[in-house]
Amino acid sequence: MRGRASGLTALVLGAAAGGGFPQWNCGCRLCRLARSGDPRVRPSTQASIAVSGNETDWVVVGASPDLRQQILQNPRLWPVHGPRQSPIAAIVLLGGDVDAIAGLLVLRERQPFTVYAPAPLLDLLRQNSIFNVLDPAVVRQEPIVPYEPVRCAGGVLLTLLEMPGKVPLYLESNGATEAEPWPTYAARLEANGRSVIMAPACAEITGQVRQQLRDVDLVFFDGTLFTDDEMVATGLGQKTGRRMGHVPVSGPGGTLQGLADMPGRRILLHINNSNPILLRDSPERQQVEAAGFEVAYDGMEVVL
Amino acid sequence: MRGRASGLTALVLGAAAGGGFPQWNCGCRLCRLARSGDPRVRPSTQASIAVSGNETDWVVVGASPDLRQQILQNPRLWPVHGPRQSPIAAIVLLGGDVDAIAGLLVLRERQPFTVYAPAPLLDLLRQNSIFNVLDPAVVRQEPIVPYEPVRCAGGVLLTLLEMPGKVPLYLESNGATEAEPWPTYAARLEANGRSVIMAPACAEITGQVRQQLRDVDLVFFDGTLFTDDEMVATGLGQKTGRRMGHVPVSGPGGTLQGLADMPGRRILLHINNSNPILLRDSPERQQVEAAGFEVAYDGMEVVL
Repeated sequence: MRGRASGLTALVLGAAAGGGFPQWNCGCRLCRLARSGDPRVRPSTQASIAVSGNETDWVVVGASPDLRQQILQNPRLWPVHGPRQSPIAAIVLLGGDVDAIAGLLVLRERQPFTVYAPAPLLDLLRQNSIFNVLDPAVVRQEPIVPYEPVRCAGGVLLTLLEMPGKVPLYLESNGATEAEPWPTYAARLEANGRSVIMAPACAEITGQVRQQLRDVDLVFFDGTLFTDDEMVATGLGQKTGRRMGHVPVSGPGGTLQGLADMPGRRILLHINNSNPILLRDSPERQQVEAAGFEVAYDGMEVVL
Repeated sequence: MRGRASGLTALVLGAAAGGGFPQWNCGCRLCRLARSGDPRVRPSTQASIAVSGNETDWVVVGASPDLRQQILQNPRLWPVHGPRQSPIAAIVLLGGDVDAIAGLLVLRERQPFTVYAPAPLLDLLRQNSIFNVLDPAVVRQEPIVPYEPVRCAGGVLLTLLEMPGKVPLYLESNGATEAEPWPTYAARLEANGRSVIMAPACAEITGQVRQQLRDVDLVFFDGTLFTDDEMVATGLGQKTGRRMGHVPVSGPGGTLQGLADMPGRRILLHINNSNPILLRDSPERQQVEAAGFEVAYDGMEVVL
């Protein structure tokens, strides 16, 4: 399929939220099922996709800490010739959390590619000297600005989008005092007249969100939690989904409701280990699929 | 075996040098064999071992970027009970390179454990705000000083050792100007009268090195390169092994010669993807084994 001249291909490198599935220190029912090899669940690495318009050069969105493993598991991202080479031509950063940037550290070895990121994220890399392993003379850093498209590799046009972030502090009721460190972004990628949006974090489905998602062929959308209080109810954490910047899949104002009438394909991604949609025969998974949504998994490939 | 009261167990979590095997962007013969599933080579993650004296609490030496994958592949490191728990009680850092510290980022999630490291390495973590994901209120940092033993988890007595580092700049012939950023360390771990040394980097086998290795039951020793100019000869790099702080396995002053008369078990680890000992039927591998050395692999377990 190399060199195919039309369409857009999206590969799911990782479907899970931060920590992955199973999470290293989590003994919850779903993580235990994943470790036991139960066929009803699929172990997943942390969220990332790769997109190409020519199936030769790939744009990776999200630098997951699992990137080395993800490359090994996806032959399309293997070097084509020696001694040193990679089909990965660009990395797009959307967030500053460990699960969204640490994968850059995997990509040292003096291999040229371009990092596209909003300026505050490039500043974050500069402030952390460990990222100097990516020599700026070899790895180009290019700031991107919301709604200003840039032509990157593989025939892909990249546009940074803004998404609603965490609830403002003054609206919080739990007394937490953490500030929102970064705006929340999504990426729109177009090639050969096809389009995909990668939106691993969205705190609320507003009119603007719906407008942005309406005219794409495919969206990978925030599937972190099924219910807003899932982490609290399962004893795994103290924060609600909205407090963490993630709209729940179910319930009033949730994703199933808010994106019910979108015309394109809708695939949930960035799925937390607490989310029962990870279990193939769960009622929650059935509810999601009955509503016309899909659930991402590592290695999923969509050709548009 | 849980709760066994005597002996020491060492697990190889990762046997490869920085970049792992295969390396993401490397198209050399060995990396291609590894990707193709050839049974003569074993894919390996980046260097790390886990040690325990009670088989319940584990001390991990080296925070490899592959730590999430390594934990998943080693049932002894899985949580024993929920909702959140881990048998990993301590992490020992020996170097400041990405392949020796990035694994700490995997261990966020508010799980208590202790990081033991020389003070300059703890400073490095403080200088890189990304490591703040390990909240100091949850993850304790404890500086260690060469040759001052500390009692850590799992009945293990930990002693930091000094190893010869990179060749001094004034002795270099290739005109490079990079300074040596950190001293080079090894770790000695003892439990129940048994002992192991983890020495993933050693630039020269001096009398002091031989003295330190003489009275342990097992050493995991720097197996980065088979010949000093291997990276140059294979077109993969411009530096010799000694220039990178790694004594070669073969040749005059090499490891086979320098450690020929050590009484304990000697296992080569931190093996670069260019090293022909990775190939099971290579003459170099035969030479190593004929000399009484072993070659580490992911999942290798040694009970002393």
